[in-house]
Amino acid sequence: MSSQFGTLFRISTFGESHGGGVGVVIDGCPSGIALSEADIQVDLDRRRPGQSEITTPRNEADEAEILSGVYDGLTTGTPIAVIVRNKDHRPSAYDEMAKKYRPSHADYTYDAKYGRRNPNGGGRASARETIGRVAAAAVAKKVLATIAPEIEILPWVASIRDLNANVDPATVTFEQIESNIVRTGDPEMVDAMIDAVKAARADGNSLGGTIECVVRGVPAGWGEPVFDRIEADLAKGMLSLPATKGFEIGSGFAGTLLTGREHNDPFRLDEDGKVVTTSNRSGGVQGGITNGMPIEFRVAFKPTATIMTSQETVDNEGQETELKGKGRHDPCVLPRAVPLVEAMTALVLCDHAMRQRGQQG
Amino acid sequence: MSSQFGTLFRISTFGESHGGGVGVVIDGCPSGIALSEADIQVDLDRRRPGQSEITTPRNEADEAEILSGVYDGLTTGTPIAVIVRNKDHRPSAYDEMAKKYRPSHADYTYDAKYGRRNPNGGGRASARETIGRVAAAAVAKKVLATIAPEIEILPWVASIRDLNANVDPATVTFEQIESNIVRTGDPEMVDAMIDAVKAARADGNSLGGTIECVVRGVPAGWGEPVFDRIEADLAKGMLSLPATKGFEIGSGFAGTLLTGREHNDPFRLDEDGKVVTTSNRSGGVQGGITNGMPIEFRVAFKPTATIMTSQETVDNEGQETELKGKGRHDPCVLPRAVPLVEAMTALVLCDHAMRQRGQQG
Amino acid sequence: MSSQFGTLFRISTFGESHGGGVGVVIDGCPSGIALSEADIQVDLDRRRPGQSEITTPRNEADEAEILSGVYDGLTTGTPIAVIVRNKDHRPSAYDEMAKKYRPSHADYTYDAKYGRRNPNGGGRASARETIGRVAAAAVAKKVLATIAPEIEILPWVASIRDLNANVDPATVTFEQIESNIVRTGDPEMVDAMIDAVKAARADGNSLGGTIECVVRGVPAGWGEPVFDRIEADLAKGMLSLPATKGFEIGSGFAGTLLTGREHNDPFRLDEDGKVVTTSNRSGGVQGGITNGMPIEFRVAFKPTATIMTSQETVDNEGQETELKGKGRHDPCVLPRAVPLVEAMTALVLCDHAMRQRGQQG
Amino acid sequence: MSSQFGTLFRISTFGESHGGGVGVVIDGCPSGIALSEADIQVDLDRRRPGQSEITTPRNEADEAEILSGVYDGLTTGTPIAVIVRNKDHRPSAYDEMAKKYRPSHADYTYDAKYGRRNPNGGGRASARETIGRVAAAAVAKKVLATIAPEIEILPWVASIRDLNANVDPATVTFEQIESNIVRTGDPEMVDAMIDAVKAARADGNSLGGTIECVVRGVPAGWGEPVFDRIEADLAKGMLSLPATKGFEIGSGFAGTLLTGREHNDPFRLDEDGKVVTTSNRSGGVQGGITNGMPIEFRVAFKPTATIMTSQETVDNEGQETELKGKGRHDPCVLPRAVPLVEAMTALVLCDHAMRQRGQQG
Repeated sequence: MSSQFGTLFRISTFGESHGGGVGVVIDGCPSGIALSEADIQVDLDRRRPGQSEITTPRNEADEAEILSGVYDGLTTGTPIAVIVRNKDHRPSAYDEMAKKYRPSHADYTYDAKYGRRNPNGGGRASARETIGRVAAAAVAKKVLATIAPEIEILPWVASIRDLNANVDPATVTFEQIESNIVRTGDPEMVDAMIDAVKAARADGNSLGGTIECVVRGVPAGWGEPVFDRIEADLAKGMLSLPATKGFEIGSGFAGTLLTGREHNDPFRLDEDGKVVTTSNRSGGVQGGITNGMPIEFRVAFKPTATIMTSQETVDNEGQETELKGKGRHDPCVLPRAVPLVEAMTALVLCDHAMRQRGQQG
Repeated sequence: MSSQFGTLFRISTFGESHGGGVGVVIDGCPSGIALSEADIQVDLDRRRPGQSEITTPRNEADEAEILSGVYDGLTTGTPIAVIVRNKDHRPSAYDEMAKKYRPSHADYTYDAKYGRRNPNGGGRASARETIGRVAAAAVAKKVLATIAPEIEILPWVASIRDLNANVDPATVTFEQIESNIVRTGDPEMVDAMIDAVKAARADGNSLGGTIECVVRGVPAGWGEPVFDRIEADLAKGMLSLPATKGFEIGSGFAGTLLTGREHNDPFRLDEDGKVVTTSNRSGGVQGGITNGMPIEFRVAFKPTATIMTSQETVDNEGQETELKGKGRHDPCVLPRAVPLVEAMTALVLCDHAMRQRGQQG
Repeated sequence: MSSQFGTLFRISTFGESHGGGVGVVIDGCPSGIALSEADIQVDLDRRRPGQSEITTPRNEADEAEILSGVYDGLTTGTPIAVIVRNKDHRPSAYDEMAKKYRPSHADYTYDAKYGRRNPNGGGRASARETIGRVAAAAVAKKVLATIAPEIEILPWVASIRDLNANVDPATVTFEQIESNIVRTGDPEMVDAMIDAVKAARADGNSLGGTIECVVRGVPAGWGEPVFDRIEADLAKGMLSLPATKGFEIGSGFAGTLLTGREHNDPFRLDEDGKVVTTSNRSGGVQGGITNGMPIEFRVAFKPTATIMTSQETVDNEGQETELKGKGRHDPCVLPRAVPLVEAMTALVLCDHAMRQRGQQG
Repeated sequence: MSSQFGTLFRISTFGESHGGGVGVVIDGCPSGIALSEADIQVDLDRRRPGQSEITTPRNEADEAEILSGVYDGLTTGTPIAVIVRNKDHRPSAYDEMAKKYRPSHADYTYDAKYGRRNPNGGGRASARETIGRVAAAAVAKKVLATIAPEIEILPWVASIRDLNANVDPATVTFEQIESNIVRTGDPEMVDAMIDAVKAARADGNSLGGTIECVVRGVPAGWGEPVFDRIEADLAKGMLSLPATKGFEIGSGFAGTLLTGREHNDPFRLDEDGKVVTTSNRSGGVQGGITNGMPIEFRVAFKPTATIMTSQETVDNEGQETELKGKGRHDPCVLPRAVPLVEAMTALVLCDHAMRQRGQQG
């Protein structure tokens, strides 16, 4: 188990879907940052279930409590512990799942690794684990704002199954994305996407899709090659999120179809004499270091593994059997995954901003 | 700069394309592993330039020397230092590049980050940096063989531009892949791929593509959620390689077009009573932990940035200018990137194998 | 701020003396260890104030709650979060201290480092911070018992000021040490030590002393030279405790008065053919690795900085002033520091036991 | 094996006393620092054997070669690899030692840990291992000079056996210390110390002693409580050096004999209005953070384990036997340990200076 992330802005998350609670300890946060529980709550509310008609109807209030590290409204430089109590206890919904391995879930692998697991609600493999990340990222965003005030981290739902949004990364706004319950930046796709999710749920089925993210206002010079390249740490951050299957930056997989002559980004000077590239197939990163252009990447999320359909599986006594999903689940995780992509991006960038000033002053 | 990778099997690489040499220090290698320079040399030879008619004609012998950590043919448990001297000094080829930023290279970003750089041959951003990784991975593979003797790490060139290989991950062999200079597993695509690379070079252009990798024989139970999931660490390892733009595991981006009912992998028992899945859209990993099925992933490599064509750029004094590539470069990095994908996979898996036994005994 | 300790058994502590609470997240604990809040509570009770007539009369119940990582009475391998709520809110006692720097406390240095601090009760520099360590060590001891069942970690108060206990490390028992409120292993010194502490308190003064610790039953082979030698990590662990000024192992500083002929420990075989040394000036460690003999070390604790006497100081506005201690404090930290020395020893050894099996299997 | 040290200024050392060579990779060094091999050589020469009539007559030239990370005389921010070739091959001197465990050496414990070792000259447990530390520290000192130009790290031999030097930490200079081959700061003790070492050698015996170190010019605010306190990391650094048995800071063990009223350091303002303490029993550190006063600490070194006298021991086949030291060894390590104490101090402080600016800007 490794529930720690970051080098200087270092977080340690904990908690299962059932039990006392979930949360995070943030070690290394700079002092003097204005921070209140409300700053964290706003992002937890964007992550929480039950927020709209296309998410799970589970209602988890997810109230954040800051236990330490803040005095008189400002961070003190000491560890910030945030806890969120678990409230919605329904272990009975999971009795069958304690024995039968849910297909494409982590039940079997946790048993294989640890010889046991907390079978309620997915235990540590529950999406509820991400609360600690979102809480920590709320702090990371405030730190980033002191180092790079222009920075904007903007992820949106770029596709649900084969429904693709048409969004301009250069101009998309937080308000556009948050204006609809799908969290897509393309208003013309909202209804179709909502209908698709509702239809999947009605059918006991589920959907996947992609999230695209642009980060504008990043200074040139962040990233620590050769191993801790910005894109390497973003890839790790994204693939550490539940249900993710892929990551690509800039031209990504499609870029392999171009020749070098088509793919290279020419350097030019903008009207202020700043070095820019006239295309951005590099996705804002060259040689693992930001070049001052927007960071652009995409993340693939598989369709929700829990479906209300009988499936073939085995149990923990080595017998073949069948299992049908129970409980209340998101038929499509994409809308609620938008704040998660934002969170991991903020955690990666905040840590790199601090590492750059640690080494280079 | 972060040139360290791994938690227990921890490597520290160093070196630029020009200067005294490149190499690696491996800290934490178990004792008692048979190891000689020949074990390392075989993989360095697969990585080195000048190995075939479709790679750069530069001839770098890349002879490995083990400085420490081995006694009487066996590792002693102490740090293993491996160095490879630089031999091919041609700094004159790079004079112009010391001033003009090569498009889609790391020249500009290294200057932005560090205020200076070694301009000869790309300095630390040279592909030569990967020698240390390959040398360390040669050791990692020997350690893995003692922990999981059945393990096979098999990457191959799956596509060059739009030329796609047809390879069965269940049966592909090392010999098939190494039997041709493209390192693709599909004999019917070899000639077309070679011709495409030669044509690109003749045109002063370059090509990209994808590498697919299967790892067979991995036990269930490796991977450290929530952050150090196997796929997260593989994604980081791959995106830390030069020229990579994307990573996907199992169903990947294409999996977002499936519904949950189509996507889930049913569990069954094989003839020996071992738990298996009848499909492998999970790519051998569930919840960040290996499930005993083959790990399957793909990596996107952009077309080589150095092309023999004049391109728009700026120089380090803030003037717009033009630059045409010089020197001897691979028109397509894919064939030589196969041992790099193998190396990062071995480093990730060896570290996770040791971490699993550290925590769980 | 760095509130993380350990490589594989890795803890992250948090909390100030006032505010929501204090605690720890333990990452990397093996699964299947029987663990309840009672296991932790017993050690917290040994650490807590108000436990006897020679400690501070503050009464902090310090009730541990396990939030995660345990299911059905057994650890699951996932992070174990333990919190202890703060209860005894008396910030008014600290009003003056918010402005005036207490001599030989951390008030001034925290302000110098972070530009601010939580002034109530010492904030993060309070001894209350050690609760997280003790809670984590209660778990570490249970893990150690599964790896090295013979292990016994036994620290005792070896001196208070110039009152020296006479204790045989080979035979001293936990019961002997815990049988008296001073936690010394020498019954003949108990009354004199108690009287000295009471006299110091009556005089508004304070006392320091030393703690000696023996660890019996450690296997040969733990320790990770060259930097993470057992004695190096023990020294770090001890010097990370509040009020410590020195550490010595085996012959220590007195050993510098011996010649090599007098100092060396001859190797012999015991009746079972096991390699032993006939003296133990090495303190159980040679070359940074345990040799199977008892580990023996001593730690120096300065007299409590808070005294009920007016002292010269400056305030946070740069004015010279005077300050007299207020509140309820231990006139001598030694008795309550015994479980802290035990805790850091357990954390160091548990981590090293796991690291050894991670590398060597 | 853990041969890595530091968080941001991170070193990885390697090498045995015999074999290809020893050295270090420094990761995270800021760019733009003037650095040449001569900068490193001067400290290696202070460390090397054969430098005076009271050290071992072995003559190891120890020439440093910088392989990477420096261009045009300045560091580039990329890893700096330094190697020193081994030259003095005399493995025959060690034949007997390959089988018989030298008392109070690491032969037995390395075998117990790793099942094997390089028996020539102590292998990794040789003092030769410290070359990498000294080389890295030469770089760390140059980095420190850019962050805290006033800093001076000054260790000296404070005692050899019962011969105690009388040195004023406030005024001692590098020139005073280096003016004599003992490296003590007290000219009146030089002859007596030299005579004592010579007499011990003539007798086939060896001596230990203490090194005291003062660091002047450290800004207030360095140190990362609660675990990475300055004194904790210094203690770890010192106890990671071969032959060390103890560490104390400020008042140290003697401070336990004082009462709080005698021990506390009053705060006052100096003529420039800077906060100072009128005594320095804290040793320049309060609550784990530097307070701007000189850091003062002492380190105990045991008498050299290799003596030219027959001693009882066992061999690696479990037989009791005798062994008499051979080869050429220092009868007293103190003079050559002075640059080692300096090196570890520089490594600790450089890392903390960079961590402070990483977190706090």
